[in-house]
Formats: sequence, C-alpha cells, structure tokens
Amino acid sequence: MFGVTILGNNSALPAYDRHPTSQVVTLNEHLFLIDCGEGTQMQLSRYKVKRSRINHIFISHLHGDHYFGLAGLITSMGLLGRENDLHLYAPAPLEQIINLQLEVSDTTLPFKLHFHPLTADTLLVTHDKYSVECFPVYHRIDCWGFIIRERKKPRKIDKEKAVAYNVPAVYYERLKNGDDYESRTGEVVKNELVTIPNTPARSYAFCADTIYNTTIAEKVKNVTLLYHETTYLKDLHERAAARFHSTTVQAAEIATLANAQHLLIGHFSSKYDELDEFLHETQAVFPDTQLAIEGVTYLVK
Amino acid sequence: MFGVTILGNNSALPAYDRHPTSQVVTLNEHLFLIDCGEGTQMQLSRYKVKRSRINHIFISHLHGDHYFGLAGLITSMGLLGRENDLHLYAPAPLEQIINLQLEVSDTTLPFKLHFHPLTADTLLVTHDKYSVECFPVYHRIDCWGFIIRERKKPRKIDKEKAVAYNVPAVYYERLKNGDDYESRTGEVVKNELVTIPNTPARSYAFCADTIYNTTIAEKVKNVTLLYHETTYLKDLHERAAARFHSTTVQAAEIATLANAQHLLIGHFSSKYDELDEFLHETQAVFPDTQLAIEGVTYLVK
Repeated sequence: MFGVTILGNNSALPAYDRHPTSQVVTLNEHLFLIDCGEGTQMQLSRYKVKRSRINHIFISHLHGDHYFGLAGLITSMGLLGRENDLHLYAPAPLEQIINLQLEVSDTTLPFKLHFHPLTADTLLVTHDKYSVECFPVYHRIDCWGFIIRERKKPRKIDKEKAVAYNVPAVYYERLKNGDDYESRTGEVVKNELVTIPNTPARSYAFCADTIYNTTIAEKVKNVTLLYHETTYLKDLHERAAARFHSTTVQAAEIATLANAQHLLIGHFSSKYDELDEFLHETQAVFPDTQLAIEGVTYLVK
Repeated sequence: MFGVTILGNNSALPAYDRHPTSQVVTLNEHLFLIDCGEGTQMQLSRYKVKRSRINHIFISHLHGDHYFGLAGLITSMGLLGRENDLHLYAPAPLEQIINLQLEVSDTTLPFKLHFHPLTADTLLVTHDKYSVECFPVYHRIDCWGFIIRERKKPRKIDKEKAVAYNVPAVYYERLKNGDDYESRTGEVVKNELVTIPNTPARSYAFCADTIYNTTIAEKVKNVTLLYHETTYLKDLHERAAARFHSTTVQAAEIATLANAQHLLIGHFSSKYDELDEFLHETQAVFPDTQLAIEGVTYLVK
C-alpha cells in the first residue's frame, strides 16, 4: 500500500474543525510524517495511525501551523516508551527550539532523536524500497517540498520464454535487473525477449506552502500524486501572491506542467467554510484532482 | 459571574478525547487563561470562549502539556488582528522559547506581549475588582499555583439605621469602608450599628501539578473554590509521589486542611478511561468535590 492520510488540511488559523497541516504517508510498513501542526498527536489517535511506526518526520518550514505539534508528539512518544531512533528533517533552527523545550522540562527522551537540517536539494533517505528527497519551494521563509519515491522495481521473468531461450535459472536475478544473457557459446539473448516490465515505480510529492512558481513543476516532473497547496480560490490571486500562497488554478497549472497523474489540494484558508468551489475551480484546469479531507487516505496509484 | 471553564482535564498524554491542562477563569468581563496545553486554541473555539478578552495568561510550569498550545494561541491572536496588550506570567525560560518561535517564523505580533517571569510568592496583578497572586507548589521542575481573588467588598449602608443615628449621607462612603462616625459634638456611632456586611469576597486557587504537600493548604487557606490535581487514584500513592503528583485522597486532605469551601479535581492520568472512581474516593474525604469536565464551567460561589 502506498497512500497519504490527511491529518490537517487547513491554513494557519484552525477553523470548522479543520486542523493545521500534517500528513502521514504509508508505504507498506513504512510511515512518514510530513509536517506536524498543533494537534497532530490527537489526530494520529483519532485516525488510529500507529505513531510507533513513524521513524521519519519531515518539516517543510517553521511557520507554527506546520510544526507546533512536534514537541508534543515527540514528548508523548517518549512517555509511551519508544525506543527506536527517530529521524527529524527540518530547517536548522528547529533543533535549538526542540532542544530548549526538552531542556526546560528536564526531559530525557528514551530514544535517539537524529536531527537532519534541510539545506539544499538532497536525497534525505535511501532504502532498498524507497527514497525521500527534498526540494526548495517559494514561501515567505525558507521552505521545502518532499518527494517519496518507490525504488524502481525489477523486471519480471517471462518463465516460458526464459526456458525456451535456455537461460539458466541461476541467471534470473540478473535478468530482473535488465541484463542481457550471453551463453557460453557467445550467443546473446536480449533482456526484453525473456522479461516483462514491472508496474512503474510510484511517487508522492508534497509541495508545502508556496507561491506559484513553475520551477516546482520541474522538480516534481512525472510524479504519480502531487499535493499542492490552494490557500485561496482563483479570484484572490493577488492576496495569494502577496502572502506567498497559491490559488486553485495555479495548483492545477503546476500539476499540468509537471505531467502529474493525480492532484491533491489542501491548506485551505479559514476564510472558507465550504470547500466545493476549490474542487470545481481546480478540476476545470486539471480534472484528476481531489480535495484533501482530514481522515481520508488517498492512494498513490 | 465568577467561574472556571475547563478546557483540558488530562495529564500529559492526551487520551479519550481529554486534553492537556488549560482553564479559563471568568470574573465578570475579565478573562484569565491558566495553562495552555496543546490544542487550547481549538478548545477555546469549541467552547466559544472569546479569546480577544483574555489579557492575562498564567503558565504554571514548563512541562509541555501545560504550555505547548501557547505559541499557537499567541500567533493566532496576531493573525486575528489583536491590538490589546497581552500579559504572560510564566517561568523565565518560556520567554526565550516564544521569542525564538516568533523569530524563526519571521512573525511580528500586532500587539504588545509583556513577559512577567515567576520568581517568588508575588502579587502578579492588582486591579480594583480583583488580584492574582502566585505561590510555589512542589513538582519535578519549578512550578507555580495561582489564586484569583475578588477584592474585599465594601460594607452596605443600613439606611434606616443611618438615618436614625443622624449620620449625614455625605459620610456614607466612609461607612462602607468600615469607619465609625463621629458627630461634631463628639458622639461616636460604631460602624456595625449602621452598616451590614457585604457578601464575602470569593477566590479561586489553582494548584497546578504537585506532590502532596501541606504547605499548599496554608497558601490557599479559606479559598472558595480549590482546584487540586488528582493524577492517580489512592492506591497509586507511591507512583504519585515518585512522579511528583497527587492522589484523590491527598487532594481532599489539602482541601480539608485549607478549609476550602469547594474542591475541583483534574489532571487525570491517561491510564483511566472512566473518572467516576476519582469522584467517589475524593468525596469520601471531602464531600463538596466535583470532577473537572471539559467544556463545563464551575461557579465560584
């Protein structure tokens, strides 16, 4: 399973029981928390997300609605007896804030907290099943997007053909990696003749808070599911620009330019009680769009 | 109206939709926020408390479940365009934390935030209608209780008697303050003959997180409504002591020693799903006890 569960879909001011930004990405048994607004630990409980399985937390930027729930979550993980290392990827000043909060409360965590400052386009995590990278977006302060990618999957053996071409079974692992087979007599069997492509590797991109900027589309090129903020409806594009946020139409344009397969929109201003118009305006430009609704998991497929 | 509205009644780990500590004390048009655990700003909205009328915030200690909602509340007050000064009374290191959080988010508040560090038993606020003082309690780290007192009320004129004793009306204000009347001929009319006592000044004491300590009873002597924590039921008195918390029976004993009129108990451990036993155990020692339930306002009467 590869999907993203929305814990908070609102902009800075909580309203209408909508919460500040937080999302959990699930990739099989791996859980990644992206942003951690106030109340995230309660939202994790409400939606029965196993917080003990979160080993990596990514914070896009240091506006409070994206991290004020972090100290509480970390402290609670400690109270619950967590022992596994926790990796935190965030703008550098967050380390001092968290350390200060732990220090004044005389708290020693029972697990190791590794802090990784975000400084440049980087591959943050590599694993044999996935990778996570960050890229800059364009907000009022230093701000980062994240892409979680499945690793490219091995090709599948077409067993009937492999037998017909006399490829020994011991060579199958190399076939999966795309190698051709050369027999002892020098005869070459091209890989495509005896294997079939696997399903393509999927990816999820989180573009955080950002003004409309087409370089983001290059960073998230061909992503399977793109999350892009839509703080405002299209008529408020001037306000959006002034506050380094985006509108519905702008998110749809980034998705189009990026050749994304699907688009998820969120970070709705507390001006708006109803969200339907966000969907209508975005779908008019990019039809395969969904609203980020709290408690709902959107599959990356 | 003089009352306290409970926003959070749970100990450190949020559970069963119970929230970390926060209370709003209302004294006519004056609102005081005591502690501000994560999610307090959402609780204020949920229970329709007018946050714009909160001018004084008191933080008992720097365990996160008592202040992790503060930065979010302050930031939201700014986003909502607050202009009135806000006074924050808390252990000294909180100032650095809040300033750092504002700085990294490049936030300039549109109102003035006055920080008042808690350092000794002090009268924190004086006003012609009320006063607020703090006193030390006994927790794992520096921790403070607070008492909000109505000002002593003037005596009432017994008009019929005042006329009968020939006290001129111009002297009535001095009678209200308890002065005797002396006529030009040197005749003294004792105050008690021409006035009657007003209703007694009411008071509310918040004892924060604390181990059982009888000196607290002296600090809150004769209080109208006493809030005392009961993190644990009586059988866990050893755990309570080890963690600098109190049990039901200990809270009841403090209320008895203090000669409090009423007792309110809270800060329930997330071990406990049901709270009835807290009430039974405490009432067995101090009958006039109520459970602090979120969203409920308890009158100080």
